[in-house]
Amino acid sequence: MTHETKIRVRYSETDRMGYVYYGNYPQYYEVARTEMMRSLGFAYKQLEDSGILMPVVAMEIKYKKPAIYDDLLTIRTTLKKNPLIKAHFIYEVFNEKGELLNIGSTTLVFVDAKTRKPCKAPQYFYDALPLE
Amino acid sequence: MTHETKIRVRYSETDRMGYVYYGNYPQYYEVARTEMMRSLGFAYKQLEDSGILMPVVAMEIKYKKPAIYDDLLTIRTTLKKNPLIKAHFIYEVFNEKGELLNIGSTTLVFVDAKTRKPCKAPQYFYDALPLE
Amino acid sequence: MTHETKIRVRYSETDRMGYVYYGNYPQYYEVARTEMMRSLGFAYKQLEDSGILMPVVAMEIKYKKPAIYDDLLTIRTTLKKNPLIKAHFIYEVFNEKGELLNIGSTTLVFVDAKTRKPCKAPQYFYDALPLE
Amino acid sequence: MTHETKIRVRYSETDRMGYVYYGNYPQYYEVARTEMMRSLGFAYKQLEDSGILMPVVAMEIKYKKPAIYDDLLTIRTTLKKNPLIKAHFIYEVFNEKGELLNIGSTTLVFVDAKTRKPCKAPQYFYDALPLE
Repeated sequence: MTHETKIRVRYSETDRMGYVYYGNYPQYYEVARTEMMRSLGFAYKQLEDSGILMPVVAMEIKYKKPAIYDDLLTIRTTLKKNPLIKAHFIYEVFNEKGELLNIGSTTLVFVDAKTRKPCKAPQYFYDALPLE
Repeated sequence: MTHETKIRVRYSETDRMGYVYYGNYPQYYEVARTEMMRSLGFAYKQLEDSGILMPVVAMEIKYKKPAIYDDLLTIRTTLKKNPLIKAHFIYEVFNEKGELLNIGSTTLVFVDAKTRKPCKAPQYFYDALPLE
Repeated sequence: MTHETKIRVRYSETDRMGYVYYGNYPQYYEVARTEMMRSLGFAYKQLEDSGILMPVVAMEIKYKKPAIYDDLLTIRTTLKKNPLIKAHFIYEVFNEKGELLNIGSTTLVFVDAKTRKPCKAPQYFYDALPLE
Repeated sequence: MTHETKIRVRYSETDRMGYVYYGNYPQYYEVARTEMMRSLGFAYKQLEDSGILMPVVAMEIKYKKPAIYDDLLTIRTTLKKNPLIKAHFIYEVFNEKGELLNIGSTTLVFVDAKTRKPCKAPQYFYDALPLE
């Protein structure tokens, strides 16, 4: 299952090399997976408000081409594994010419907000996700 | 009462103009006032852990010259008003040549972490501050 | 002349107080004035590409209420002075309930990208702006 | 070859989960490798000023425990490969208790600032690095 989100590069996100700073893509990925969840009918904020946090436990990025100021990026997000305990998202970032700028992935776990211990994904999370 | 802190400009804090992004100075000011408090014998974190937050209610900045990548900045912080209810900090940012880059000020209030309502500064805050 | 932009609060923009960090609003203001310019038919990027930079020389913010994670903010931007040499923008940030969260202003000057000296606004900047 | 740098967690770097936002560690890594280079007798800024950029082409992070506000982190940086064309840095982030919070790596290439094409590392880069 795949979802696309658009993000406009802000001036603050560029660096003196003239490119988007390499450390800003995790922010873009966060927006992308949040919008994917919203498109499925629930907000990540609801999950947190119900007492479940989703911290990131692993991230990988391959940078191929830079994004520049004011680019309207398209982030294609794919939810890979059946997120019983872990959710594995893959992100592909494209510029307006359709060039692939970078590929990233993040692994998130479900954590009880009070105990800060791992827990299972809530039932409505499954119900929302069209996973086989 | 005045305190000086040094901050090295990070690559991430520059923008494609080649300067420190104008919106990053509030971060520097935060570091400066935190280090001022620490030099007086208590950490701002202790204040929060004891149930008191200090949100910023006003900020002003005059930008005179830009800071650039890798500059070792000196921030001279002055605590102005007797902080019974509000704490008023003034910041002067200098580069290594001693040039004044910008002047800023922030006004912070004391807020009860539970009720999120304004409250008085705690007694030990006064005891730590050498105010007349 | 007034323009409205919507910005969704990112997780990365919150702090441990649970609010949007006070130093992130300058970024939102940047997005707001950029989108205002775009709505008038030209991108700020075009201005830079043509050799003119617009650094911020002054900023003021009054914080009234906090924005929280996932809020869909509306930023109402007003261009105040006739920007012959300086452009003065005023920003009002509202949450979805219509509450005014903060009011800010920034003053920007026109600078020649090569000499980094002040210069006049280009003619097409005026032509685009419906100023009296 | 290994180098250690200390970084104090800023308020702005925390998120509403109460932890350092996962996307802020790339910034810390940047500081760490820059300070490693400085300890070897040259600043990364000098490299850029001489016409060579070092963009990041790959990054990996494993997050084990969170850093919290005001933590004084120690980042242990190791330069792994002989950086003829690529420089491979490994980072281990520890808190004051000596707990390992995360492990990351970045691969950087040398790029000619004018052509933006890959190039070799400059001779003085080798001379500075005590690599076998």
